[in-house]
Amino acid sequence: MKVGIIGFGKTGRAVASVLLESKKINLQWVVRQSRLLEHRSVPEFLGLASDEPGLIYTKDEFTASELLERYPVDAIVDFSSETGLDYYGAEAAKRGIIIVSAVSQYSDEKIGLIHQLAQHTCVLQSPNITLGINFLLIAAKILKNIAPYADIEVIEEHFKAKSEISGTANIIARELNLPEESIKSVRAGGIIGVHEILFGFPYQTVRLKHESITREAFGNGILFALENLRGKPKGIYSMEDLLLPYFKLKEPESEIITAKKQPWWQFWLK
Amino acid sequence: MKVGIIGFGKTGRAVASVLLESKKINLQWVVRQSRLLEHRSVPEFLGLASDEPGLIYTKDEFTASELLERYPVDAIVDFSSETGLDYYGAEAAKRGIIIVSAVSQYSDEKIGLIHQLAQHTCVLQSPNITLGINFLLIAAKILKNIAPYADIEVIEEHFKAKSEISGTANIIARELNLPEESIKSVRAGGIIGVHEILFGFPYQTVRLKHESITREAFGNGILFALENLRGKPKGIYSMEDLLLPYFKLKEPESEIITAKKQPWWQFWLK
Amino acid sequence: MKVGIIGFGKTGRAVASVLLESKKINLQWVVRQSRLLEHRSVPEFLGLASDEPGLIYTKDEFTASELLERYPVDAIVDFSSETGLDYYGAEAAKRGIIIVSAVSQYSDEKIGLIHQLAQHTCVLQSPNITLGINFLLIAAKILKNIAPYADIEVIEEHFKAKSEISGTANIIARELNLPEESIKSVRAGGIIGVHEILFGFPYQTVRLKHESITREAFGNGILFALENLRGKPKGIYSMEDLLLPYFKLKEPESEIITAKKQPWWQFWLK
Amino acid sequence: MKVGIIGFGKTGRAVASVLLESKKINLQWVVRQSRLLEHRSVPEFLGLASDEPGLIYTKDEFTASELLERYPVDAIVDFSSETGLDYYGAEAAKRGIIIVSAVSQYSDEKIGLIHQLAQHTCVLQSPNITLGINFLLIAAKILKNIAPYADIEVIEEHFKAKSEISGTANIIARELNLPEESIKSVRAGGIIGVHEILFGFPYQTVRLKHESITREAFGNGILFALENLRGKPKGIYSMEDLLLPYFKLKEPESEIITAKKQPWWQFWLK
Repeated sequence: MKVGIIGFGKTGRAVASVLLESKKINLQWVVRQSRLLEHRSVPEFLGLASDEPGLIYTKDEFTASELLERYPVDAIVDFSSETGLDYYGAEAAKRGIIIVSAVSQYSDEKIGLIHQLAQHTCVLQSPNITLGINFLLIAAKILKNIAPYADIEVIEEHFKAKSEISGTANIIARELNLPEESIKSVRAGGIIGVHEILFGFPYQTVRLKHESITREAFGNGILFALENLRGKPKGIYSMEDLLLPYFKLKEPESEIITAKKQPWWQFWLK
Repeated sequence: MKVGIIGFGKTGRAVASVLLESKKINLQWVVRQSRLLEHRSVPEFLGLASDEPGLIYTKDEFTASELLERYPVDAIVDFSSETGLDYYGAEAAKRGIIIVSAVSQYSDEKIGLIHQLAQHTCVLQSPNITLGINFLLIAAKILKNIAPYADIEVIEEHFKAKSEISGTANIIARELNLPEESIKSVRAGGIIGVHEILFGFPYQTVRLKHESITREAFGNGILFALENLRGKPKGIYSMEDLLLPYFKLKEPESEIITAKKQPWWQFWLK
Repeated sequence: MKVGIIGFGKTGRAVASVLLESKKINLQWVVRQSRLLEHRSVPEFLGLASDEPGLIYTKDEFTASELLERYPVDAIVDFSSETGLDYYGAEAAKRGIIIVSAVSQYSDEKIGLIHQLAQHTCVLQSPNITLGINFLLIAAKILKNIAPYADIEVIEEHFKAKSEISGTANIIARELNLPEESIKSVRAGGIIGVHEILFGFPYQTVRLKHESITREAFGNGILFALENLRGKPKGIYSMEDLLLPYFKLKEPESEIITAKKQPWWQFWLK
Repeated sequence: MKVGIIGFGKTGRAVASVLLESKKINLQWVVRQSRLLEHRSVPEFLGLASDEPGLIYTKDEFTASELLERYPVDAIVDFSSETGLDYYGAEAAKRGIIIVSAVSQYSDEKIGLIHQLAQHTCVLQSPNITLGINFLLIAAKILKNIAPYADIEVIEEHFKAKSEISGTANIIARELNLPEESIKSVRAGGIIGVHEILFGFPYQTVRLKHESITREAFGNGILFALENLRGKPKGIYSMEDLLLPYFKLKEPESEIITAKKQPWWQFWLK
């Protein structure tokens, strides 16, 4: 699967390194705004042994149309900003190229554009494209369903310089119908990213906690997304859409329970 | 719903206090081995305002048959030991009385007996009858299904005097197919009970953590079990059986996602 | 050492149970505002085997002078409210009775009164009279001294119904010169009390964390305070005053370090 | 201050990047075993803007004597292995060059050599040369002194591939006189390094916890060590030796306490 990356900041680099190490993905190019590192090879720059092309280009060098003609890809991974979409969106959709965007915030106008693109190709947009966070979110929704009377608080910890509330924490709060005051933002030193969803009961607590070790966590999420979007019909997808088929559980093996004639529970995805 | 309790140790007392405070449950009696507190009133002993009878009897005073004739109940909650079942099991099953046992370990012989009783009434047996732990176990199974390559460790913390590995940790390990070495037992001071299931990934971790605040947590689990067993057909039930119908999630509400025509995911219980 | 308790709410009861179990302390009486439980015996009420008198009286029954004449004590432990001091303060000071107050907030006027009383007897006032919290506070001050550039945040978790910021967290913030915004208050379920002081560095974090298991933790702090105030000259004392003599460390035992001729470090209290 | 580094594995690189960014330190060279990266510039290799020389040499290219004549330094930082010392030890000591070694384990023979070198220059050896861990260790010793009856457990978490018990955890256990069974080792995914010292009391717990975010944490520890060893008399030093002068605390500022005439407490280093 041939892939191009838009954006080459810290996260873009980390994701590039994970894609380069995957045998299922072939990194074709990186396009970025800045002229820094122009025409350098990504594997060489990152010190990784790889014979994938992965050259770094500047937006100004090619139009997206020229780029996609010369160096065609099956999927584009976007770690740039809201305006990245203007560069490649229409040209990618026209060619049925899968679009995976990890840009954290889009204006209403851009969300409209995403819907238009999704009439022609698969588009996945997720501001926190890790497996862990997306699992946490689904598990938290389930627990809230079991125990709607629980008190829920979201605690997020990030590096000191991060001034606003974490976008991921905002999504968690929104999906669980919590007021913004439920989010407690801790800012200290170089903490990469911690999200904890705390369920308080009268006599017990349940904590669902995700810790990012490095930005490469996004790379594994991207790999998961690319593998699971392949072959899907066009439309808009979320990480949850892709995760849910995995929620089909095997039957339990404990003695007492298997003594029952019938399989006792099972999940389905419609 | 009229309920009797077998066993009046620390956990039995905590559960009794939760049942007394519930308006849906009427505590009829407690039966215990020891003569201590004989004929005392449970509400008075626990300092709770309640006009439920709740008298404390000794096993030697009545046979179970005499007890259940004089003071009939709809359900028996067992916090005693393995032998408790010998006292009340057959008589309760004969009368179709719901049996909820939180006894942690049963011999093979007793498990056989439980199966026999379950041909006549509803029997639920669970060594850790809290909502939190049972939710954690299901969530952990799902995450293992999504990410079978994750490294899983179970960390359990309890008071210093607890010498053996926690029964709950053993169940978690068994249900997740982990070797016993995956359980790390921490013993210090008066810690009531902490269970953490740690999923380690290359660049992120997910921690599912349950903390017991007081033994009353079992009381809420018992309430949940009693309410959900009521009216069910006879047979053996686990806490998971009762929890799963709650796994049916509502549709999400985020803008991007609801823009799609079709509901994007849904859970069913067969 | 004969002790009387003012106040018999949840914390007062927990502390009473710890004092009753200590062989060094003899609980003489409890005085409270409410007529509930009047003339009941504390050991009997708490279900503890003890032959200490420990009768419960009402404020209206005796003046403090009458009480202290009939049932003299060496120390008074106050878990009531700000006005408790008006009842017993002057009479206790006159008799040189040690005063230990865990009342969380005093007005300026009452602080003035405390200073007057301290000219006649030993007075210790501490809103969180546990060993753990007071150790944490000293340790945090030391770490701030070593690393003044660290980002410090205070995370406190308590039960849902606690509306204001924890008094202990406020003291931590004040003593570490942190703005109130550094305190993140989490409120959920029945959490008894968690205080974490987080030091964030560019590439590492240090967390100092205290968890209360039950209110009896205050009892152990009271025991520590009573034992260490005994025989001290009159004046005002804090928990830190009493803890510091314990900061004298033994010499280390690691091979490399002991190879040095001179003891390498040592603490003194002036 | 001119500095050379021995060893250029993952940690050596991280430390080099921190030293390059410090204005007080000038990185002269790196010497390593492998011929890889020979004569490359460290700033260029790490992508950092710096005009410090920082060239990479191989052990075989120079003897330590030749190296230190041509490219003199004030301090050598050793992140290689036990045998690194054989290369540079004697020549560095002869010239009074400060030696800071973060090699985790030395044989008795090498410890003897360190003592000999320390008769000529300052030598600091510490297997975990972070500020955080060393603070934790001192704080834990103090708390053990205050509460010798506490139950202490050490929980350490590292990446799956780390097979042995963490050297740091072993040091913590040794310094606190704990049996090896007190160390619980958790191994999962890519966890960089977590050390928690848990003090369990009957009704409360205190947790002292250190988390490494990246290997650069060692760099800050090295900076601290270099700055504080400068000008010190020759001899063996530990991180604790250097930390202790910082334990002198200011006087408190709370109202009640400052009302007392005399400063209430203070620390001294002999």
